[in-house]
Amino acid sequence: MSEPVGVALLGCGTVGGGVAKLLLEHGDRLEQRSGRRLELRRVVVRDPAKPRAVVIPPALLSTDIAAALHDPAVHVVVELIGGTDLARRVVLDALAAGKHVVTANKALLAAHGPDVFEAARKAERTVCFEAAVAGGVPIIRALGESLAANQVTAIQAILNGTSNYILTAMADGGKSYADALAEAQRLGYAEADPTLDVDGSDAAHKLAVLAQIAFGVTAQPHEIERQGIERIDVTDIRYATELGYTIKLLAEAWSSPSQVGKSSSRQDAGDRPDDLRPDDLKTVALHVAPVMVRKTDMLAQVRGAYNAIQIVGDVVGETLYQGPGAGMMPTASSVVADLIDLAVGRAQKTFAAARLWSHRDRGFTVEPSEKVRSRFYLRLAVRDMPGVLADVCRVLADEGISISSVIQHEAVEGHPEQSVPLVIMTHYAETGRFRSAVKAIDRLGTVATPAVSYPVDD
Amino acid sequence: MSEPVGVALLGCGTVGGGVAKLLLEHGDRLEQRSGRRLELRRVVVRDPAKPRAVVIPPALLSTDIAAALHDPAVHVVVELIGGTDLARRVVLDALAAGKHVVTANKALLAAHGPDVFEAARKAERTVCFEAAVAGGVPIIRALGESLAANQVTAIQAILNGTSNYILTAMADGGKSYADALAEAQRLGYAEADPTLDVDGSDAAHKLAVLAQIAFGVTAQPHEIERQGIERIDVTDIRYATELGYTIKLLAEAWSSPSQVGKSSSRQDAGDRPDDLRPDDLKTVALHVAPVMVRKTDMLAQVRGAYNAIQIVGDVVGETLYQGPGAGMMPTASSVVADLIDLAVGRAQKTFAAARLWSHRDRGFTVEPSEKVRSRFYLRLAVRDMPGVLADVCRVLADEGISISSVIQHEAVEGHPEQSVPLVIMTHYAETGRFRSAVKAIDRLGTVATPAVSYPVDD
Repeated sequence: MSEPVGVALLGCGTVGGGVAKLLLEHGDRLEQRSGRRLELRRVVVRDPAKPRAVVIPPALLSTDIAAALHDPAVHVVVELIGGTDLARRVVLDALAAGKHVVTANKALLAAHGPDVFEAARKAERTVCFEAAVAGGVPIIRALGESLAANQVTAIQAILNGTSNYILTAMADGGKSYADALAEAQRLGYAEADPTLDVDGSDAAHKLAVLAQIAFGVTAQPHEIERQGIERIDVTDIRYATELGYTIKLLAEAWSSPSQVGKSSSRQDAGDRPDDLRPDDLKTVALHVAPVMVRKTDMLAQVRGAYNAIQIVGDVVGETLYQGPGAGMMPTASSVVADLIDLAVGRAQKTFAAARLWSHRDRGFTVEPSEKVRSRFYLRLAVRDMPGVLADVCRVLADEGISISSVIQHEAVEGHPEQSVPLVIMTHYAETGRFRSAVKAIDRLGTVATPAVSYPVDD
Repeated sequence: MSEPVGVALLGCGTVGGGVAKLLLEHGDRLEQRSGRRLELRRVVVRDPAKPRAVVIPPALLSTDIAAALHDPAVHVVVELIGGTDLARRVVLDALAAGKHVVTANKALLAAHGPDVFEAARKAERTVCFEAAVAGGVPIIRALGESLAANQVTAIQAILNGTSNYILTAMADGGKSYADALAEAQRLGYAEADPTLDVDGSDAAHKLAVLAQIAFGVTAQPHEIERQGIERIDVTDIRYATELGYTIKLLAEAWSSPSQVGKSSSRQDAGDRPDDLRPDDLKTVALHVAPVMVRKTDMLAQVRGAYNAIQIVGDVVGETLYQGPGAGMMPTASSVVADLIDLAVGRAQKTFAAARLWSHRDRGFTVEPSEKVRSRFYLRLAVRDMPGVLADVCRVLADEGISISSVIQHEAVEGHPEQSVPLVIMTHYAETGRFRSAVKAIDRLGTVATPAVSYPVDD
């Protein structure tokens, strides 16, 4: 029987408590899976006296990070501190002290991936991060190992459980955004300050991590265009339903074959998986936005706080991975899977082969979403007078955008006086040209309030 | 740079052609992912002169299996022969000759898993089989590695693309079983003799493989109860729709906590993932059957030839994996992922740690599905006379089964003269007691034809 693996837990909040519970109460199971005992040897917290859901033996608890990092009986440090400053210092110190690192910290990876991974390679240690994206969904292994024969061509993912919970409550219960958010806060699905969840920032951090694995691009989070769900009106949810769609906050990556004369497009992804992409297609557009998804699409069925990731690979075609995106035990499941991989020796092999956040260039560059081709939903409040529809159609036509369908209902409550809602679905168009058209439409005297628009996934 | 990995392909049909295409045309990509060149060195076929979709260099082609197995330049043998007899001999010979083996052969694993894995351990070689279950869906890695912190408590899976294609065509197009099957055959989704696909045998083989990973049980395929889709009537599809369900052929594993006084049940799975199962719950029921799945359930949305596997782990809760279940490139994606894992050295670690099909007992035993608690759909053709419903209800009540809802429409075409359809949905009941009730109902003089029944997943 091999030596036990000594584990130090830095941070013992919700996820840390789950990890401690597994290590303390299910040691035999974990030993059976990894061939070695996983021993919890230190738990570092800010306040050892604080009552916890999981009882930690007092001898393990301390406030001393440095002692944990330099304890020779500790082989793996689990970073659950969060944030980017202290977490970065602690992770770099742990690696320098010869420890492997398991982290659930997507913000750290998105902001400091190159530093952290370079330090790990220098120290010949391994960094694992299955829990950093989509909680209990094993998407890091799927992308990095299971789909290794593929060049990923598209990712469409629900990566923020809070936003998905709110959108589900709006669609199912007819709730307003404010009411749905309040409900999510009451039930613990949203924090008191939900900004990073609902404005797309959290999803963008996670997308940056996935894009590193799938394309080898290091996109700083601020480079990823994002639109949140804060301005989604229940009117849009109703129109989406009427048109056969559901609105989901999606983190998306579209790889473009533009070098061979085709634009990247929702149209291209996944057609003819036996017709592989040439290996010289090297641009990718990354963004987070509310997207209208067909009701019959798998992503439309993902409800509440669940996460789901659809990946199109040029060999396999479309695959989808779904599960709980956060929470004590689901996230602990991923953290402990990393500990088992380290104990088995699998993680070290993967780390060495993948060379993530390294200078090994796979040749992909991030391009703005301007060139991504998509259908669009456009909702306007227009003055009830002749010629308005003609004006709007003319602006779209000038950008080469053709209209697929138009809905004009009677005026509804809440709309500015003397204005009526006008909803237009376009055919496929380049995002950049659509955006130009929207700007021009907003300048029309016949349009009462700024246009609302979302991409449509068809 | 490390030595190349020499690969021999035994069999070059659809999947073999896909594997050859990847190795021959995307060598740089695969080398980048694995750090070693994957070199196709031999392709053994029955008829080298046969025209192929993928052009194989003539120097690689031969009919000589033994030469491939004993070529020192070959390190990995990819078995794509199929069947259980020749495949078994070839795999055992390859292992004895010191080669690693990659196989897509679920029938081989289901029938001869213990032999093959014992031989591999003796030879200190590795057997990989991601492609054996669900084609391009990386379910083997998900179960064996990503969810390693979990005890799986339930599996519900669409594992046969042919059956799912037929059921989708029946539900969407209102086609009869015979017409849907003919369409599937015309489009290449069903073979000329579709028996093993539509009678549940293929799904049972795959379930046997998943059950080995999840529970350590070696279930011979004939020990897995199965009911196919051949007798599903379009009437049942219509009632299912009316009741808010879709009929799917599911391969299921339900792990029972019966030792602590609770029966296994669709009710139990997945509730309160933070309330872990004790590690001493050790029975599992395995079966393949058409099941009524709620329309809003993810499994209900899986269309056409796609496969999907829902896994409930006691730590993570519900996760789902979906993708193409067969086909040239999707299956090749999984085969080549195994080759990359062998080149990286990951597969060897996994193989050693997992000890599949070994004598290491994890204590699970397979029990009949009799004790699984479920709701049921029951369709009867009853004579149009007083007291019939009372008789049926009495039989169900005698078995302690209570009724949730009843539908009785006007008589429809195709029913025996003077009989009307009667559809009953039950509350949760033990499978064994429900089956007893059905037998008793079939003996009632007022029931015209044998009852049709399916479990209902709620």
